[in-house]
Amino acid sequence: MTGVTVWLTGLPSAGKSTIARAAAGPLRDAGRRVEILDGDEVRANLSPRLGFSREDRADHVRRIGWTAMLLARNGVTVLAPVIAPYRDARAEVRAMHQAGGTRYLEVHVATTVEVCRDRDVKELYARQARGDLRGLTGVDDPYEEPVDPDLRIDTHGVSVEAAVRTLMAAVSASHLVAHPQQIRRGGEALSG
Amino acid sequence: MTGVTVWLTGLPSAGKSTIARAAAGPLRDAGRRVEILDGDEVRANLSPRLGFSREDRADHVRRIGWTAMLLARNGVTVLAPVIAPYRDARAEVRAMHQAGGTRYLEVHVATTVEVCRDRDVKELYARQARGDLRGLTGVDDPYEEPVDPDLRIDTHGVSVEAAVRTLMAAVSASHLVAHPQQIRRGGEALSG
Repeated sequence: MTGVTVWLTGLPSAGKSTIARAAAGPLRDAGRRVEILDGDEVRANLSPRLGFSREDRADHVRRIGWTAMLLARNGVTVLAPVIAPYRDARAEVRAMHQAGGTRYLEVHVATTVEVCRDRDVKELYARQARGDLRGLTGVDDPYEEPVDPDLRIDTHGVSVEAAVRTLMAAVSASHLVAHPQQIRRGGEALSG
Repeated sequence: MTGVTVWLTGLPSAGKSTIARAAAGPLRDAGRRVEILDGDEVRANLSPRLGFSREDRADHVRRIGWTAMLLARNGVTVLAPVIAPYRDARAEVRAMHQAGGTRYLEVHVATTVEVCRDRDVKELYARQARGDLRGLTGVDDPYEEPVDPDLRIDTHGVSVEAAVRTLMAAVSASHLVAHPQQIRRGGEALSG
């Protein structure tokens, strides 16, 4: 089975990890090897000394991207639910995959900040509002929205099952033609 | 194909990378997916800000170990030619693999420091002797020899081809019985 990296970018509480966890089972049922590289978990293993400055966030994304690329080029379907707030760091990860001809899908989990704040599964928005936290992506730290992602999912009013079905269809479609997204995105990634 | 991590530990110029590069082809010919996680290359991607203190070296080894484990548990044969001078960091990597039932082989490339100094492929020994470099493993920085590695190869007077044959045999043997080295080493790894 050909590997692919599926990067789920979006705000905190957008639903990135929920979709990744829910998609893992069906993807395995479809015969794929699946790894979830969750931002927080990878941070503990690869980036324990990094913080949340622009530079640190970019390094963190780069390390996950490199690890994902190694796995994907060995046939693994990698789900990376990672905020990745900066466009250039995301473009770098895409370029890293392209350089070796490894498939890559950027999925924008495009839930609005209002909905994310209502969910607030990690209580980050509440802590920021109370003044206990600074640098929250989408509130007082930048989130640069993907301009032309391979897929956009707004999870508001959409069931997890429906979101997973959409994701599965995109993953399957990425295999119908040789690297369609990579040909289409060559210019963007290289200019990033 | 079941994956396995083959960690080649030893002094600088011991022949770790030479063996890994020479083994990759025959392993692929045997139907395996192979990744070489070379210490210097991985450092550039995962640990650009780490130096060579005991703590930094341990972190570096841990990151490579985690990446190797992810690959190996997805069926990849990972060759890691990485000095890894400290016993406890190596034991941690072994334990990380054991925790998920992933195969792991520790290979001590046990070339003597005298032979390594004669080879000095990166001119590290010469630079250390001139006083241009400090903290060279095996000279003025510790190298804790493996007490009971799965395989020991002294490359002095042994052809690369012969070393690769020995390595291939060990990799094949690791698959004859379910995790023999992991059962045998349980105590050691957990006490490390």
